[in-house]
Amino acid sequence: REPVTATLFPGDGVGPEISDRVVEIFEAAKVPIKWDVQIVGKEVDPRTNSFISRENLDSVLKNRIGLKAPMATPIGKGFRSLNLTLRKELQLYANVRPCLSIPGYKTRYDNIDLVTIRENTEGEYSGLEHEVVPGVVESLKIITRVASTRVAEFAFEYARKHNRRKVTAVHKANIMKLADGLFIKCCREVSERYPEIEYEEMIVDNTCMQLVSRPSQFDVMCMPNLYGDIISDLCAGLIGGLGLTPSGNIGTNGLALMEAVHGTAPDIVGQNKANPTAMLLSGVMMLRHINLSKEADMIEKACLDTIAEGKYLTRDLGGKSGTTDFTKAIIGALDD
Amino acid sequence: REPVTATLFPGDGVGPEISDRVVEIFEAAKVPIKWDVQIVGKEVDPRTNSFISRENLDSVLKNRIGLKAPMATPIGKGFRSLNLTLRKELQLYANVRPCLSIPGYKTRYDNIDLVTIRENTEGEYSGLEHEVVPGVVESLKIITRVASTRVAEFAFEYARKHNRRKVTAVHKANIMKLADGLFIKCCREVSERYPEIEYEEMIVDNTCMQLVSRPSQFDVMCMPNLYGDIISDLCAGLIGGLGLTPSGNIGTNGLALMEAVHGTAPDIVGQNKANPTAMLLSGVMMLRHINLSKEADMIEKACLDTIAEGKYLTRDLGGKSGTTDFTKAIIGALDD
Ligand SMILES: CC(C)[C@H](C(=O)O)[C@@H](O)C(=O)O
Ligand SMILES: CC(C)[C@H](C(=O)O)[C@@H](O)C(=O)O
Repeated sequence: REPVTATLFPGDGVGPEISDRVVEIFEAAKVPIKWDVQIVGKEVDPRTNSFISRENLDSVLKNRIGLKAPMATPIGKGFRSLNLTLRKELQLYANVRPCLSIPGYKTRYDNIDLVTIRENTEGEYSGLEHEVVPGVVESLKIITRVASTRVAEFAFEYARKHNRRKVTAVHKANIMKLADGLFIKCCREVSERYPEIEYEEMIVDNTCMQLVSRPSQFDVMCMPNLYGDIISDLCAGLIGGLGLTPSGNIGTNGLALMEAVHGTAPDIVGQNKANPTAMLLSGVMMLRHINLSKEADMIEKACLDTIAEGKYLTRDLGGKSGTTDFTKAIIGALDD
Repeated sequence: REPVTATLFPGDGVGPEISDRVVEIFEAAKVPIKWDVQIVGKEVDPRTNSFISRENLDSVLKNRIGLKAPMATPIGKGFRSLNLTLRKELQLYANVRPCLSIPGYKTRYDNIDLVTIRENTEGEYSGLEHEVVPGVVESLKIITRVASTRVAEFAFEYARKHNRRKVTAVHKANIMKLADGLFIKCCREVSERYPEIEYEEMIVDNTCMQLVSRPSQFDVMCMPNLYGDIISDLCAGLIGGLGLTPSGNIGTNGLALMEAVHGTAPDIVGQNKANPTAMLLSGVMMLRHINLSKEADMIEKACLDTIAEGKYLTRDLGGKSGTTDFTKAIIGALDD
């Protein structure tokens, strides 16, 4: 098979070292991928009004597929988050985070198996805020029929494709009657076109209570931007944190940028301590997205087996190994 | 001691039956309280433009203290939530929810001991929403210096009074830079007047992840309205749900209305199945608030001992007893 070209953002902090490990594992697994490495510069590109340059965006738009390590947004007035700039500029409207218990990595919860699908372009992330008079700030949450419908369609298509039985729309329409009201109205309308998939609505506060007490009731969850931000992190916490959870940002016609959503961990940079799992599993999601399922399955299995075996874990996972030994162990577990 | 007059809202659904049990237990404990029972009518009072009448509000304003069972907001266009109307009209600006593991009631978490303090009057609950053009809704989140500062002051005063070591301000100021930015600015300013209390800030998504993985790091938590709504339910879930957690709404000059925040449970009304614990523990909070600490301690102990003993639990607690036998057991445990 011809190699696929994929954009790679090595990012900041531990980003480059975990990216290198992913590249290494992909090579060992003979994944037919060529990387188009994109560095985010230290100067604002006037064409994008962001550190994310026109070339950075064009690379993803051309390759249609990419993988991204954590990025640090320079601190200072008026800088938009780099992560958000990518999501918004590329109109990556659905953020997908599968959340599965990792056998061998013990938390208070077993057998978690759910997926959060988050609207990724509007809601509380509109960026529209102003001070009305001194000491009084208005922040605008924007909910549109277009964005709500397309993320709901994405959620149901995802459920159908992955043989999942239920979609839960999460909202606070008892308070935000118009905004969240519109969101669930769109979900409800879309649900009617998927009679084989169960549909339910749940208020966001109750959802969080249910997630910590009876998480097995959930399957696919679909929600506005901020609830998705909160709930996907909560869910990651159930299985062990952001170091273990992959994430994907999906746009129109299959455009996709997968990313490790944990921080850049500046305190451990260059110390061979970083855990590449979230980045690797995001890479696995990427491979599945471009139909390299055999390679995806093989790498995922090697990674999960290595964690389950527990001999070569990084310190955040309770082990004593460095990034490189953990990586070697994964490579050693390939092909079994 | 002269009896204190307190407003009692028996509410709807299981409200009246759990209210009766609380009244019964208070009588058995010889609590010097006279109840001013307030029924919320089935017609809108034109003076308040709500089912909550002028008399209902005046009762709380006169007595300065009250206890409230769950209320069902009549369904239909334009009806404001009764719970919210009370909070807003009475300017009960701080919602306080202590969350303590109940010995004997097993969940995945031990030794939870934290308190959420929620801004209770503005934020995402402004009620200001409109459809800009068809299919595009704007919902306004309002953050003010006045409301943020007073809830922060409340949180620090609470911490001081209850010998708590830390206040965590929860926010999403990396996204809502102005709105949540103002909220944490106010918290930070207030924190400087309480040098003996540790102060930290945490982003709401990370907070939820931390709450499910390492909840013992938290003590007092202070946050805008919606995050408080979500996080207080999440916390309730850690210890067993809303059936076990008391709640208080506090206003100026000690005005206070405690409430059971679970639902009205219409499916089990009149079947002797309802669990009065949340209402009773809210009553205990009320007693403490008016300095009837001896009675508060006695009733709380009797309730917790009964749960720990586990012989007469209601079905939601995993037992087989009815409301009345559970209540009898609590009364029997008084005075030990
Ligand atoms: C880094 C931050 C801007 C981002 C968000 O709020 O979406 C992060 O929390 C995430 O979930 O990817
Ligand atoms: C019933 C509902 C309006 C209310 C809220 O959103 O505040 C409830 O969830 C609560 O936390 O008391």
